[in-house]
Amino acid sequence: MKTFLIICDGLGDRPIAQFDSQTPLEAAYTPNLDKLAEGGVTGVMHTVDIGVRPGSDTAHLALFGYDPNVYYPGRGPLEVAGIGMEIKPGDICFRANMATVDDDMIVKDRRAGRIGDASPFAEKLNGIKIDGVEFLAGAGTGHRLGLIMRGPGLSPQLTDVDSKKVGVKARKFESADKSREAKFTAEVLNKFLEQAHLKLNKMELNRERVSQGKLPANYLLVRGAGIFREVPSFYDKYGLKAACVAGGGLYKGIAGILGMDVVAVEGATGKPDTDIKAKINKAIELGKEYNFVFVHIKGADTMGEDGDPEGKKKFIEKIDEAMAPMLNLTDSLVVVTADHSTPCVLKNHSADDVPVLISGESVRHDDVKQFGERPCAKGRLGHIRGSHLMPIIIDLMGLAKMFGA
Amino acid sequence: MKTFLIICDGLGDRPIAQFDSQTPLEAAYTPNLDKLAEGGVTGVMHTVDIGVRPGSDTAHLALFGYDPNVYYPGRGPLEVAGIGMEIKPGDICFRANMATVDDDMIVKDRRAGRIGDASPFAEKLNGIKIDGVEFLAGAGTGHRLGLIMRGPGLSPQLTDVDSKKVGVKARKFESADKSREAKFTAEVLNKFLEQAHLKLNKMELNRERVSQGKLPANYLLVRGAGIFREVPSFYDKYGLKAACVAGGGLYKGIAGILGMDVVAVEGATGKPDTDIKAKINKAIELGKEYNFVFVHIKGADTMGEDGDPEGKKKFIEKIDEAMAPMLNLTDSLVVVTADHSTPCVLKNHSADDVPVLISGESVRHDDVKQFGERPCAKGRLGHIRGSHLMPIIIDLMGLAKMFGA
Repeated sequence: MKTFLIICDGLGDRPIAQFDSQTPLEAAYTPNLDKLAEGGVTGVMHTVDIGVRPGSDTAHLALFGYDPNVYYPGRGPLEVAGIGMEIKPGDICFRANMATVDDDMIVKDRRAGRIGDASPFAEKLNGIKIDGVEFLAGAGTGHRLGLIMRGPGLSPQLTDVDSKKVGVKARKFESADKSREAKFTAEVLNKFLEQAHLKLNKMELNRERVSQGKLPANYLLVRGAGIFREVPSFYDKYGLKAACVAGGGLYKGIAGILGMDVVAVEGATGKPDTDIKAKINKAIELGKEYNFVFVHIKGADTMGEDGDPEGKKKFIEKIDEAMAPMLNLTDSLVVVTADHSTPCVLKNHSADDVPVLISGESVRHDDVKQFGERPCAKGRLGHIRGSHLMPIIIDLMGLAKMFGA
Repeated sequence: MKTFLIICDGLGDRPIAQFDSQTPLEAAYTPNLDKLAEGGVTGVMHTVDIGVRPGSDTAHLALFGYDPNVYYPGRGPLEVAGIGMEIKPGDICFRANMATVDDDMIVKDRRAGRIGDASPFAEKLNGIKIDGVEFLAGAGTGHRLGLIMRGPGLSPQLTDVDSKKVGVKARKFESADKSREAKFTAEVLNKFLEQAHLKLNKMELNRERVSQGKLPANYLLVRGAGIFREVPSFYDKYGLKAACVAGGGLYKGIAGILGMDVVAVEGATGKPDTDIKAKINKAIELGKEYNFVFVHIKGADTMGEDGDPEGKKKFIEKIDEAMAPMLNLTDSLVVVTADHSTPCVLKNHSADDVPVLISGESVRHDDVKQFGERPCAKGRLGHIRGSHLMPIIIDLMGLAKMFGA
């Protein structure tokens, strides 16, 4: 038996006036998701807890049964893992932007004119050593980098120095607590950023950019400090051989940290133009080799953050269309849910619960025949927490350990 | 955006035979509350936890997101704060009755014939100092007083000496644990009660009362010892500027301790004769200046304690009528619920859950069209705890902090 867990990022929403007070999911034409709901059990889920507004990172950890209060390492380690950098326990990890500063260290552009490929810059910075600390840099998508500090005596307790503004001076890191480790980390990181700035300024590629009238990528805007600590693997926790199909780096990163095999799918971009059919078909194919396949689909979240209910509805209809082959599976659980709601009216995450359906032959299906926020609230799963999802799946798969005898 | 939280004290009930097994709330004609339910999301709430029978004090703390297991200071501090006495961290606070004892210290009347105004007696006792401890007395409503012991080395760990009976001797306080502080506190308090008795007996006012055939108010029946410790303010916790509209001292006291502005409303008596319309209208007015307005309405609880389902039903209909202007608010959440159930059949609080409705434009309304114990149990909020209410409100207001990124 195998499980397909389809996480539609930011799927949940609030009533939309133009949809006659339905949500985009409720208003969308979703015959396949509705059939799955009809043949399955439904409910609503608070991924972290009632009234807690989760990030995508904490929500995914919670969904997989990893209490984010214990296991959330900050965004840095997840992003760094997501771009495929090798990461070791004790590493201090950051996300970074290639940015542009002028000679007075004033930020001119937070993305260096949205450069398309940060690889040459990452290569230039990778391997720099300062005071016994090694800096590792890897290119993410577009202007994004992952940055690792590796060495003894480091701490992630640093102030957030990203002002998110242009026209202001790039700030130096400070320790966020009184520990010697944090002070040392801030000092070394500031030295690195200075060195990096000098090295980047001297790069032939940047000279070329300037001569072409482009902004030089001559500074690193660094944020999201976190320390990576080893977590129990998904396999050790559940005995499931798991694969991940995702476009977005964060989701690959989380899957990677949990020890899932992250499988590349052509056309999976992590954006609304992603090839959902290719992802679902790949997942079904992986089901022959793995007994747990996690599919992450980002677009609905993006549409919610854009405040675009019509786009969100259409994207959900694309998901639904792609889900058709999931109706014909045997010996499988198909689980469809979200990590959090991203109401168009808020253009941001909310703590509103998300619908969940679990479809499969041996599931106690209920009377709910539509996959939506309100219909699912009447389902027999009731109101669950994210921490309940994996135990329910494991039990439905017949793999739960008995408590007692 | 602003929130109006209407707490109908003791609203919940159990089936009443004469109402065809409906509760007073279900049997009442409540078109306005029903409209709010229809346009909102509903559910049921266990203010403290399932099966926990809360006092009004612990229930309100829980509702406001203050775990009563941590923050409940005992009744004394809340009552003392409620009558407007200035209270300092470390104060040992009590509620007290002006009572009548005879020369052998036998309690003749626990309320000194229900005197209407305890102010002259409170003035007489206010400021007495014994062994370095200052006693502060303030008049509450009717025969009630607040009493504060202020000084070093005090403890609220005292035995409860109020026998709740007449014809028995007034008992002396003893320490309820083995600490030196509790022993000292009991000794000083007993000295004070003796002194108070002598002073009261000598008062001209009491001599007049006796000569008129009335009972002298010559003793203090003291109970509800608690130590006041500072709590995080409602503003610091939620960033909301909050006002309280309440008649009853306890509710004003809780609001005051949480740092809400307690606003006087003419006709708000904390009794069934209270002017509910004046309170609701005042709340709406306050909504221009505050983004959180707590309205407390006591009557339904009193009717429940009197075992009067007909009176409770009528009082609920009065609440409903007063709620009419709440239907026309924009950019607002209207939340209606109770602190606990007070079933007429019990004439006391019960652990039965209470209905809750949250109405507002961006709320995921459900199919529930009636505000009542049974209809709301079908609502999409499901079964929440009191501790969930404020996080849900904060998230619906778009003010929740994100956990993660």
